[in-house]
Amino acid sequence: MPLTRITLTEGKSQSYLKAVSDSLHQALVEAYDVPPTDRFQIIQQARPGELVFDRAYFGGAEGPRSDDFIIFAITAGRPRSTKVKAAFCRRLTELLAASAGIRPADVMVVISTSQMDEWSFSDGRLQMVEAAEAAVV
Amino acid sequence: MPLTRITLTEGKSQSYLKAVSDSLHQALVEAYDVPPTDRFQIIQQARPGELVFDRAYFGGAEGPRSDDFIIFAITAGRPRSTKVKAAFCRRLTELLAASAGIRPADVMVVISTSQMDEWSFSDGRLQMVEAAEAAVV
Amino acid sequence: MPLTRITLTEGKSQSYLKAVSDSLHQALVEAYDVPPTDRFQIIQQARPGELVFDRAYFGGAEGPRSDDFIIFAITAGRPRSTKVKAAFCRRLTELLAASAGIRPADVMVVISTSQMDEWSFSDGRLQMVEAAEAAVV
Repeated sequence: MPLTRITLTEGKSQSYLKAVSDSLHQALVEAYDVPPTDRFQIIQQARPGELVFDRAYFGGAEGPRSDDFIIFAITAGRPRSTKVKAAFCRRLTELLAASAGIRPADVMVVISTSQMDEWSFSDGRLQMVEAAEAAVV
Repeated sequence: MPLTRITLTEGKSQSYLKAVSDSLHQALVEAYDVPPTDRFQIIQQARPGELVFDRAYFGGAEGPRSDDFIIFAITAGRPRSTKVKAAFCRRLTELLAASAGIRPADVMVVISTSQMDEWSFSDGRLQMVEAAEAAVV
Repeated sequence: MPLTRITLTEGKSQSYLKAVSDSLHQALVEAYDVPPTDRFQIIQQARPGELVFDRAYFGGAEGPRSDDFIIFAITAGRPRSTKVKAAFCRRLTELLAASAGIRPADVMVVISTSQMDEWSFSDGRLQMVEAAEAAVV
C-alpha cells in the first residue's frame, strides 16, 4: 500500500536505480509488513540545483551527506509503531549499502500516513475498505 | 482546494494530458464537492524506469496494469466520508475511460488530508480559515 | 525538519531558483521555528502543460495568477498553531517579492504534518524520537 517518491541527483545508471528500488521494496516487505507484490514507486532524478540539502544537519556517524544523498518520501496506508518504523529505516540503510554502495549518512526517510479509505488501486474501488469489511464478515 | 500530483509514463500527447486533467477536475467537481474554479494539478511524466509498479496487486477486473498506468496523489484540505471517496474514485475511472481511453485497471488514487489552516492560495493569507471565520459571523 | 517540494514552470535562471530556495528557508527559520541548518528542498521545474492552475480562485489582491505561479508543498514534522502558519505564509511572500520579484498573488502554500517518529535524517535512525527521549531524561 505504500507509495514512495524517491528523489536523488540524476546521473546514476539503470542498475543503480534498480538496486535502490529493490532495496526499498525488500525493506518494506521484511520490516514494514508490506505484501511482496504491493510495490509502487516514483523516482525523480533531480537536475543540478533541484535537490537542496544541508550536508550536516542530523548527519551520519561517518560524515556529512555527499552528492549521493537520497530521499524516500513514503505515503503509507495504515499506522505502524515507532519500533517498526525504526526497524524499517535501519534495514533500508543496510540493504542500500549492500546493493548500491550508498552510505547510511546519505539516506533520508520521511513517512506520511493516510487512511484505509484513501486508496484505490484499480477499477475506482476502495480495496482496503472492502478487505476490512470482508474480514469482519 | 485539492492539489493533485498526476504521474504517468512519458510519451503521451498534449491532448491526452488535457483529457486526463479535465477528467480529474470534472470528477472532483461532480463527486468530491470541489468548486469549479478550484483547480490545481502537477503532472509528472516519468522516464523509463522511473515509474515502478506491480502489474497485479489489487488489479482490475479486466486484467493487469498496462504501460498506461497512472497515479493520482491528491492532497485535500478537509475530510470527506468513505462514501464520497468511493463515488469520486468510481466517477474518475468512468471519465478517464470516456475521455482518454484509460482502462479502470490502470488508475490508482491515493488521497491525503491536511488541515484548513494549511492552505494559502495567494497573498500569504490562509483563505480557508478566513472563509470559515466569516461564515461563523 | 520540513521537506518542501517547490514546483514552478521551467525557464528560470539558477539565480532565480537560488533566491526562491533561500527565501523559503529564511521564512521557515524566521517564522516557522526551523533550525538554520535544517534545510531540505526538492525543486520541480514543470514543462509546458505540466503545471495546471486556475488564475483566479482565491486570487491575490493585485490580480490573477501569472506564469510565475509557484507552489510550495511542505511536509512538516510537528504541528504549528494557525497563528504561526499565517505568519510564515505572510513572511514567505514578503521575502519572495524582495528577492525574486515574485508577486504575492503567485505564491501558493500547502502544508502537511506528519509525526516525529516518521523522520530519519541519516543512519536509519529516528533522530527526532531520540532527541525527545534525551530531553525527557
